[in-house]
Amino acid sequence: MGWQKHYQDKLSRFFQIRNLLLRQALAECLGTLILVMFGCGSVAQLVLSGGSHGMFLTVNFAFGFAATLGILVCGQISGGHLNPAVTFALCLLGRERWRKFPMYFLFQTIGAFKKKHLIIWIPLDALWDHPASFNVTGPDATAGIFATYPGNHLTLVNGFFDQIIGTAALIVCILAIVDPHNNPIPQGLEAFTVGFVVLVIGLSMGFNSGYAVNPARDLGPRLFTAIAGWGSEVFTVRQGWFLVPVFAPFLGTFIGVMIYQLMVGFHMEGEVRDRKESTEQETVRLTNVTSKDNSREAVKERNEC
Amino acid sequence: MGWQKHYQDKLSRFFQIRNLLLRQALAECLGTLILVMFGCGSVAQLVLSGGSHGMFLTVNFAFGFAATLGILVCGQISGGHLNPAVTFALCLLGRERWRKFPMYFLFQTIGAFKKKHLIIWIPLDALWDHPASFNVTGPDATAGIFATYPGNHLTLVNGFFDQIIGTAALIVCILAIVDPHNNPIPQGLEAFTVGFVVLVIGLSMGFNSGYAVNPARDLGPRLFTAIAGWGSEVFTVRQGWFLVPVFAPFLGTFIGVMIYQLMVGFHMEGEVRDRKESTEQETVRLTNVTSKDNSREAVKERNEC
Amino acid sequence: MGWQKHYQDKLSRFFQIRNLLLRQALAECLGTLILVMFGCGSVAQLVLSGGSHGMFLTVNFAFGFAATLGILVCGQISGGHLNPAVTFALCLLGRERWRKFPMYFLFQTIGAFKKKHLIIWIPLDALWDHPASFNVTGPDATAGIFATYPGNHLTLVNGFFDQIIGTAALIVCILAIVDPHNNPIPQGLEAFTVGFVVLVIGLSMGFNSGYAVNPARDLGPRLFTAIAGWGSEVFTVRQGWFLVPVFAPFLGTFIGVMIYQLMVGFHMEGEVRDRKESTEQETVRLTNVTSKDNSREAVKERNEC
Amino acid sequence: MGWQKHYQDKLSRFFQIRNLLLRQALAECLGTLILVMFGCGSVAQLVLSGGSHGMFLTVNFAFGFAATLGILVCGQISGGHLNPAVTFALCLLGRERWRKFPMYFLFQTIGAFKKKHLIIWIPLDALWDHPASFNVTGPDATAGIFATYPGNHLTLVNGFFDQIIGTAALIVCILAIVDPHNNPIPQGLEAFTVGFVVLVIGLSMGFNSGYAVNPARDLGPRLFTAIAGWGSEVFTVRQGWFLVPVFAPFLGTFIGVMIYQLMVGFHMEGEVRDRKESTEQETVRLTNVTSKDNSREAVKERNEC
Repeated sequence: MGWQKHYQDKLSRFFQIRNLLLRQALAECLGTLILVMFGCGSVAQLVLSGGSHGMFLTVNFAFGFAATLGILVCGQISGGHLNPAVTFALCLLGRERWRKFPMYFLFQTIGAFKKKHLIIWIPLDALWDHPASFNVTGPDATAGIFATYPGNHLTLVNGFFDQIIGTAALIVCILAIVDPHNNPIPQGLEAFTVGFVVLVIGLSMGFNSGYAVNPARDLGPRLFTAIAGWGSEVFTVRQGWFLVPVFAPFLGTFIGVMIYQLMVGFHMEGEVRDRKESTEQETVRLTNVTSKDNSREAVKERNEC
Repeated sequence: MGWQKHYQDKLSRFFQIRNLLLRQALAECLGTLILVMFGCGSVAQLVLSGGSHGMFLTVNFAFGFAATLGILVCGQISGGHLNPAVTFALCLLGRERWRKFPMYFLFQTIGAFKKKHLIIWIPLDALWDHPASFNVTGPDATAGIFATYPGNHLTLVNGFFDQIIGTAALIVCILAIVDPHNNPIPQGLEAFTVGFVVLVIGLSMGFNSGYAVNPARDLGPRLFTAIAGWGSEVFTVRQGWFLVPVFAPFLGTFIGVMIYQLMVGFHMEGEVRDRKESTEQETVRLTNVTSKDNSREAVKERNEC
Repeated sequence: MGWQKHYQDKLSRFFQIRNLLLRQALAECLGTLILVMFGCGSVAQLVLSGGSHGMFLTVNFAFGFAATLGILVCGQISGGHLNPAVTFALCLLGRERWRKFPMYFLFQTIGAFKKKHLIIWIPLDALWDHPASFNVTGPDATAGIFATYPGNHLTLVNGFFDQIIGTAALIVCILAIVDPHNNPIPQGLEAFTVGFVVLVIGLSMGFNSGYAVNPARDLGPRLFTAIAGWGSEVFTVRQGWFLVPVFAPFLGTFIGVMIYQLMVGFHMEGEVRDRKESTEQETVRLTNVTSKDNSREAVKERNEC
Repeated sequence: MGWQKHYQDKLSRFFQIRNLLLRQALAECLGTLILVMFGCGSVAQLVLSGGSHGMFLTVNFAFGFAATLGILVCGQISGGHLNPAVTFALCLLGRERWRKFPMYFLFQTIGAFKKKHLIIWIPLDALWDHPASFNVTGPDATAGIFATYPGNHLTLVNGFFDQIIGTAALIVCILAIVDPHNNPIPQGLEAFTVGFVVLVIGLSMGFNSGYAVNPARDLGPRLFTAIAGWGSEVFTVRQGWFLVPVFAPFLGTFIGVMIYQLMVGFHMEGEVRDRKESTEQETVRLTNVTSKDNSREAVKERNEC
């Protein structure tokens, strides 16, 4: 085992990145790559096999557990956000610094984009065989493998609300999971719980527009499809639908943060603060009493002298 | 991170509720909202997509994991009952105060009702497109998305027994999970286990009448549908079916509590009590012995004097 | 909370059973009841809904998680065997006393039988509506809801081997989970892991004859169906098939115990024993050395004298 | 319980293997047997029941949880690799000795082969009834139950890339799970997490060629089918496809190790090393300072003398 260790050590010294933020952004990139690779892979499998090797439930499972695995890969280093909306929520609550937000957003989008290079390899043959390869719309459209497109019954406005509610639900659940005053699950199971959240959102809100609820997960693949052969139609379809999964989640995040804080968070924080302040006052009073005692004693001592 | 903290702190002080019971009821309200939003969302997805984006299994998964998430959100504050039947069972066993029961029932129903405001937004477009929108009965009825309605093969009496057995099974499992003398699972996994209970009840008892087993989950949405456009038919259909999911679960709770206590609970409690009493008797005997010794010594001492 | 506590206490004193074995058997009875209620309930739902409210996967999930819940309910008291084959394996390995075996077998069968009283209530209306109600054979036979019947492609001999292999696989996995020298999972997750074992056996071996792998789970319901209206045909069908799920699992248990012990168990036990013995020899040698030293010193002392 | 213990002890002494490597290889053999038995059993159930008792999702679940159970059975003894690619990755990183690799590979293949003896028993009757029994190609081919065969849309080159990417994804996730510097999950849940990885790979990459991503799992069963009646066609089909799942995974392992190390591993190792080195330097500096102090004191003392 000597030479491998030595070789590993040399490689490690050569490639090591010492900047913490860059390192975190890289980890976030790998985590998002895993999320999107497994998630979109399952959509590809469903669409290209014509339903024989998948159904909507398998896509829900794949996205849920892919989120779990992505968080496990990068969670120790970067926190495992995988989603600019989550970074935004944590910045909003003052738990992460704002300068992390653009960096994470960029690398999450890169991760979601890069992964497309991989996935295109996998079902490429199946894609060429597919009757509607490189169609953005229509019953057999394949662009939906990568980015999300609204169902035909959905107007732009309702799709916007759909994204807001989905993201708000995601953020309420995630805040409950990571709230330091409300930690209901054992250390180390956060990733699995977030996976269940994503699974449940898919099971109950995936019908309208494919539950992006993640700007990076949608924008990265969409850029990829624009370059890879589907053309600019991926941006122009449905009067600029592509803006909805980019902006709606941030509004949804704000609403989710407010709901959670108003109904649970503020009261728990307040209780903790009340207890701390009462302890402080107690201490202050005690100190006053003690100092008074001291001064009295000092007086007494002086008198006695 | 300064100004967010400051802003959060100010908001927190403004909105903080200091009444414990009200705070718990609010948390219970949010938890029930999450349970019903995800659960009914999945039914909506199944019905409105005509089966392409869901099946009965996805509804079972959604309700199970939605229960888990609902309990995680509010469990630390209110105990995470989400269900008046559970509150009733815990009151019956003397583990919660009775005055909690009406408060929890009210807010759980409000949570289940309020959430409907959200869900109506999501599939609204799909709902208008649906051929049987706002029908309470018939093959494509959409009222079943919100509240439960019995299958055509079910009489009112058997639906009543169905609800009783379902709730009894739920309560037996939940009592085993939360029993302080019979705690089989690691701290923090109760929410997941309850989710599995709800999942399994759906898998094995959901056919007859949609396994409400929860008065709040059924009454809240039913009130909503009555207001939102389905009309009073939601109450009058099947000779007052709406009363079954409100009253049968409480009877089922009583039966479930009795079964669990007779077959497991009483014997474990008894063993604990026996051990305590034998320790006490031991102590009493020892004390007697010691006091006798003391008195003898006292006598001896007196004699010696 | 005073009067509930008082009432509970009085009831508890009245109903408490002090015999440990009877208490364990009762708990085992309740656990098996839960296993069979949820498991057979899901089969009933699948058969009676004609596939709209279930599929083979839902039955696998229901049996798996029902096993988990059954173990959780009674595990702390009786060990949560739920299956005479498991009791047999643990007796064979000397981890349980043999006198437990008949008692557990009896009460597990009672639990599986009793539960039928419950389940018959639930889908009774659906059962009467069913075209083939009370048929033991044929495409729509309903007897398969309760006990297992072999597929048409299966001969009696192969069904026998099928049951042996299924039970052996179950026992190998369960022994690995509960082996004190090979405890791979955190305390308290055994029930969930056994649930996964049952789930996987259903997913991969359920096709031939409905994976009973449990004499009690099959015999209890079969007795029930014989009484409830299906008649003696449940015993005579396929030249005495009913004996296969009663006797094959015990042979399979023996084979499973041997496979696990030969490939994993004996070596780990041996290692533990080796280490203990070497420690003992070390101690003996040390003692000898010390005593020799002592005797030498004694000699020296004598010489010095 | 006396005589069982005695009997067990005698058997244990007779059969105990004292060679650690052989013991580990045997455990690995049993683990792979369990993985392949449950995994291929579910494929057999799907193919032979014509879809009534399974679908692609059940196969994914079965392989995922079978991996979990296989790891649980042998994990404490051999590490629970079950896959030569995993052994290769750990050797590459210097965490296992290279001499383990051929031994594990051999016994993993034996385990995958041996298990076929078992599985052939189970669905034998169903197999003879099957219209295309012993066909390697064609719509109803049964050889796919045992080993993997590429879909018709897949060229050999793309199948090769498919296997590489699948294995790389598997290895990245497994390295994150077992990385000592990045341990995100509680002790004892590794087996479950690896099960989820296998499940997700099946959900998102199983369409092309049945996601072998494991040379032993593919080669063992293929040898079995060649002997059992399918003939040499299992090797010659598709211009030597059988070499792809044997060699591609090792290349994929190398790529997976590099991706993980470049994006996460090296930086974490580096950080740990940096911290250690700075501590050492600190110690050295402190020692120098101390020794200087000492020498000064020595000088001072000398002067004072």
